[in-house]
Amino acid sequence: MTLDNWLERYDEQDWKTQSEGTVRYALVGLGWWTTDVAIPAIEASSLCEVTTLVSSSKEKAERIAQTSDVETGITYDEFHDGVAADEYDVVYIATPNAYHLEYAETAARLGKGVLCEKPMEADVERAERMVDACDTADVPLMVAYRMQTEPAVRRARELVESGFIGDPVYVYGNNSQPLLEMIPDPDQWRLNPDLTGYGTSVMDLGIYSINTARFLLDRDPRSVQAQLYSEHEAFEGLDDERASFMLDFGDGIQMVSTASQNAQQDTMLRITGTEGQLELSPAFHGECQLHVKKGDLSVDVEHTELDEVDEMEYEFDYFADRLLGDAEIHPDGEHGLFDMTVVEAIHRSDETGERVEIETR
Amino acid sequence: MTLDNWLERYDEQDWKTQSEGTVRYALVGLGWWTTDVAIPAIEASSLCEVTTLVSSSKEKAERIAQTSDVETGITYDEFHDGVAADEYDVVYIATPNAYHLEYAETAARLGKGVLCEKPMEADVERAERMVDACDTADVPLMVAYRMQTEPAVRRARELVESGFIGDPVYVYGNNSQPLLEMIPDPDQWRLNPDLTGYGTSVMDLGIYSINTARFLLDRDPRSVQAQLYSEHEAFEGLDDERASFMLDFGDGIQMVSTASQNAQQDTMLRITGTEGQLELSPAFHGECQLHVKKGDLSVDVEHTELDEVDEMEYEFDYFADRLLGDAEIHPDGEHGLFDMTVVEAIHRSDETGERVEIETR
Repeated sequence: MTLDNWLERYDEQDWKTQSEGTVRYALVGLGWWTTDVAIPAIEASSLCEVTTLVSSSKEKAERIAQTSDVETGITYDEFHDGVAADEYDVVYIATPNAYHLEYAETAARLGKGVLCEKPMEADVERAERMVDACDTADVPLMVAYRMQTEPAVRRARELVESGFIGDPVYVYGNNSQPLLEMIPDPDQWRLNPDLTGYGTSVMDLGIYSINTARFLLDRDPRSVQAQLYSEHEAFEGLDDERASFMLDFGDGIQMVSTASQNAQQDTMLRITGTEGQLELSPAFHGECQLHVKKGDLSVDVEHTELDEVDEMEYEFDYFADRLLGDAEIHPDGEHGLFDMTVVEAIHRSDETGERVEIETR
Repeated sequence: MTLDNWLERYDEQDWKTQSEGTVRYALVGLGWWTTDVAIPAIEASSLCEVTTLVSSSKEKAERIAQTSDVETGITYDEFHDGVAADEYDVVYIATPNAYHLEYAETAARLGKGVLCEKPMEADVERAERMVDACDTADVPLMVAYRMQTEPAVRRARELVESGFIGDPVYVYGNNSQPLLEMIPDPDQWRLNPDLTGYGTSVMDLGIYSINTARFLLDRDPRSVQAQLYSEHEAFEGLDDERASFMLDFGDGIQMVSTASQNAQQDTMLRITGTEGQLELSPAFHGECQLHVKKGDLSVDVEHTELDEVDEMEYEFDYFADRLLGDAEIHPDGEHGLFDMTVVEAIHRSDETGERVEIETR
């Protein structure tokens, strides 16, 4: 393959199997992420449509529905009661972590597919209940790992799989942001242990490094070691204002990673192999740029077009594509549940100071 | 301070106190490092001179002395016998790790100062004996951490100290190289457990990340966690063909790091703080470039002049400066010994799967 060929198909949606059909989404939780990113992404998509918005207040749901040109706005209670259920096929859940399960359970009961934001829930047990609810109702469940449809990540994964970097040796990931500068409110849900679950930095940020590494390597970690630390008063009750952790992916493939909700904004993911290195920097949040080293040569791919909206457009279309073609979903409930067990193990390793094996049910 | 001022003194040798005087070096071990880097560095220095070369064979020592315009070439045995001892003031030791002690002991007995390459020795006990020998003989001992006189590292350290990045949150370091491509010989000393000591990747490469982090943070790690792995037949008897490790620097300051002698060449060191980030990339081996992020702004300092020879020139001059001014040596024997205890703890942590506290004598 020439460089020309490779660049030409750089942001090809290689997973795409369907070109016709529409999947109608109800969006649950109307924070900035839904209004500023998810709604525009679905508008730009080719297989999706928003028909229903679900929020705490009728007024808010209807107001945002009107300004966003969406048919129906309903309350959480109405959603649970099945109001307007014939207007949507699937439910996208973007509420605080600890509320994901209840909306997924209702969606399953209503026979709707579920696209649930990561992390799946506040703890492993509740994530398991979500998987079970969707299994029992036989509705599709996908966890919204948008890095898995990000072109730079998919091209990197192909390079790893083809042996371009030789044998993978180790991975490094960082995801940090100054949360209290971005949202200057100590009472926000990401700092509330009842709503976020196991801490905040690994759940909300570290999970990008963990899941993207799993996707790039096409394998799962076997054990973790971790050290967590909190000191800022806004992180009271949370053990991971900052986090460092090490994963063992088996066959000698290692990972080290850091994450913090109270640090300089930075995202980076790099895989070093015996014969090359792939670096995504920035890695997450819609600015994914691929840097490649092999021996004495290096290549930087600066992709200036895609942003978070596009990543989400691809993700919504991916879920729609799977449903329309009745195809297998890669980041499914069991896949998302595995990350929950990793995050739980990271917190336990910090408490014990020991290596913790990942055990799945 | 303006940017102009800051750049103007970027590679200032701010440690310099002496402008006159000469320290005469005997160089022990005539591998490529000594001939291609150390000798040119001393020639370029302002306070140093090479007067004596010491090698296994008289022929080699005299041949290299002649081509390098050095007065005297002697054998290891002659060195131990004190031959030509009045021709040099200090001894620079660049042999395989496990031979450092014997030359340091002889130097101490002869009343000569010692500049010993890192890591100090093959194990903690032998490093302690080196410290004790130099203490007893009352001769100065410095361990050759050239990153500590590298301008980019010194400027980064000032930025950390001044609070430029807020509170340090965590550090990441990588140092990897394809050793068997660089030196295509499985019998080289870095792959011989009897000569290298505790493994090879942490001893030879990881130590750069560890020591530079200690220097930048001006503090020492308290505990380590590690996972090591070897599979290539050339690494038989060595447990760390590749290494991942985590350090706790106290007060919540964390570090994750990787090192491998069988991976794509790459060096990087970054400190993320609550308000900024400093990245050295490349970090080691004479190509040190400083990248600074603070909030939404970033600055890249591309310093095209310095290389490994210059780093070593600064280091030789630093040691000479300390001796001529009778000033305190920063990377002294106890400082180097601490790194040996860290490396030993890393290997022990991998064996036990547990966090290991750093204990110093």
